[in-house]
Amino acid sequence: MSLVTRLTTRLEIRHPIILAPMDLVSGGLLASTVSRAGGLGLVAGGYGDDYEWLEREFALTEGTRVGCGFISWSLARDAGALHKALDSLQPVAVLLSFGDPGPFALAVRESGAVLMIQVQTVELARRALDLGAEIVVAQGAEAGGHVADNRSTLALVPAVVDLVSNQAPDALVVAAGGIGDGRGLAAALALGADGVLMGTRFWASRQALVPAEAQARMVEASGDDTVRTGVADIARGHDWPRPFTGRVLRNQFTDRWAGAEGELRDSIASVRYSYQRALAERNFDIADVPGGEGVGLVRSIESADDIVRSTVAEAEATIAKLWTIRDQPAPAAGG
Amino acid sequence: MSLVTRLTTRLEIRHPIILAPMDLVSGGLLASTVSRAGGLGLVAGGYGDDYEWLEREFALTEGTRVGCGFISWSLARDAGALHKALDSLQPVAVLLSFGDPGPFALAVRESGAVLMIQVQTVELARRALDLGAEIVVAQGAEAGGHVADNRSTLALVPAVVDLVSNQAPDALVVAAGGIGDGRGLAAALALGADGVLMGTRFWASRQALVPAEAQARMVEASGDDTVRTGVADIARGHDWPRPFTGRVLRNQFTDRWAGAEGELRDSIASVRYSYQRALAERNFDIADVPGGEGVGLVRSIESADDIVRSTVAEAEATIAKLWTIRDQPAPAAGG
Repeated sequence: MSLVTRLTTRLEIRHPIILAPMDLVSGGLLASTVSRAGGLGLVAGGYGDDYEWLEREFALTEGTRVGCGFISWSLARDAGALHKALDSLQPVAVLLSFGDPGPFALAVRESGAVLMIQVQTVELARRALDLGAEIVVAQGAEAGGHVADNRSTLALVPAVVDLVSNQAPDALVVAAGGIGDGRGLAAALALGADGVLMGTRFWASRQALVPAEAQARMVEASGDDTVRTGVADIARGHDWPRPFTGRVLRNQFTDRWAGAEGELRDSIASVRYSYQRALAERNFDIADVPGGEGVGLVRSIESADDIVRSTVAEAEATIAKLWTIRDQPAPAAGG
Repeated sequence: MSLVTRLTTRLEIRHPIILAPMDLVSGGLLASTVSRAGGLGLVAGGYGDDYEWLEREFALTEGTRVGCGFISWSLARDAGALHKALDSLQPVAVLLSFGDPGPFALAVRESGAVLMIQVQTVELARRALDLGAEIVVAQGAEAGGHVADNRSTLALVPAVVDLVSNQAPDALVVAAGGIGDGRGLAAALALGADGVLMGTRFWASRQALVPAEAQARMVEASGDDTVRTGVADIARGHDWPRPFTGRVLRNQFTDRWAGAEGELRDSIASVRYSYQRALAERNFDIADVPGGEGVGLVRSIESADDIVRSTVAEAEATIAKLWTIRDQPAPAAGG
């Protein structure tokens, strides 16, 4: 079984599923497992401040075709890791997210990697196309981890698809945010996307670099239990620019500090100490568990290759079911 | 052409499309036009404070099968209009939204109308099923007009579908929020919904009770231009409870007051005077134009029956296109 889209053709993959390059979570094992299962794994380049981590994780892919992703506003301070990665790691694709990708787009394209830019509005999609993005990832605020504040996947994707088809019809659109199973994949394709980027669902995989205690919380959680807030970033010392916040599971820490960011900054020294201790002790009443609204669709921790396969199989079954509700005779053969 | 789902069967309609009962906008002409085109129109019962308006608009439907909808927190003050409607207007279905539907659910069910309850979280969906809702409308925050704050359609709908299939498998699920065309309808069906409820797209129809000047603004707007805020409600004197706000097009008024609600309440007398004057003068730099993120999919003001037909036709074409990307032979005949 497979779903053949422009994305699978362009990236030479079997399934239109891309692993989100989740900082410190999407390592070489997870990325290569997704790639070997037929999707495309992106190793986390994160803030671009730890090239050694990235190089080590790439080594773990053992030559499997993978890409990587970086946080653009952080690259603006030091893009060394991006340039080293382009020179030495041969990523199939590079995803630039959060902040202005302008200073880095040309270097990615000239390296031969596919340039992917993640956007959260139609206006940012226009800018991404101006920069020559070959793949625009349209991310809704239902996503886990870092997101913007106002647009959601269901309405953003078709608007970006329409923009792309007018402005740069050879560019592709990938949907991100809230997609946790094959129903979501089928829905994204219905909206006109060429594929999906999934984070939360793979965060809850065996290959993710995540403590089991945190994953257990995600299995229990409903999407209702997530909240968008910058308080974990403040505690960790990452100064994210507006309008970005992180979608995480509600816990004692978010209940205490979300909406009281000023007070949090005033007492940051002691709070940061407690927060770091909670991280070390795997106390997720305090430390954050990132997760999109799709956590409600996560019911167990599975192997990433099984997630790829079951997502595609469910999407195919979904499409077959949609076909049956069309009150029309089918053509004699598919395709 | 038609899409046959459990919703079309249950409501005895041709297309799985329901008109949102938009306050003062979804009158008898719009509702009956949607119903005659094969969907189900819901006349706006709104705050339940103007039964004469509702009765007059029902008269305009000339006996076409329609339903109606009410705002539950407002019914809690005076449910007279609901009971009169159930006694005298024979609505096919009644949608209860925003606030506790508990005190009104039994009356709706005993009247013979189909009980529809709109929810914004999985937890509220559970409560709706406990109350005997026959149709749960799962509304994401990308919707226009009043919405809650945290969940979006793409991730909420499959979670509600899973809940319903476990807890009350005979109940149906309708998706609301961000659905502006046939791609959105097909996506909603892929997520497991039995149909959709559309507001924004019909707000931009010829039969909507909306000034042409306001509709012109919606045609120009992108979903990026919408904002969730309670400031128009404060200006109008409607005291909405948390967590509800209204998604409207950004304008001078929202730029001035969103985020400054305390200051707005302090100067409400003069602001309300200006706001009411702007409404009367159709000055939509000040008066609000409600609209969901789907405004980006609205490119012209069409007749509501054409909207129903083109949405279904596009959904069918979308499903046919999805079918072609399955890398499998089709069965000899559909259905």
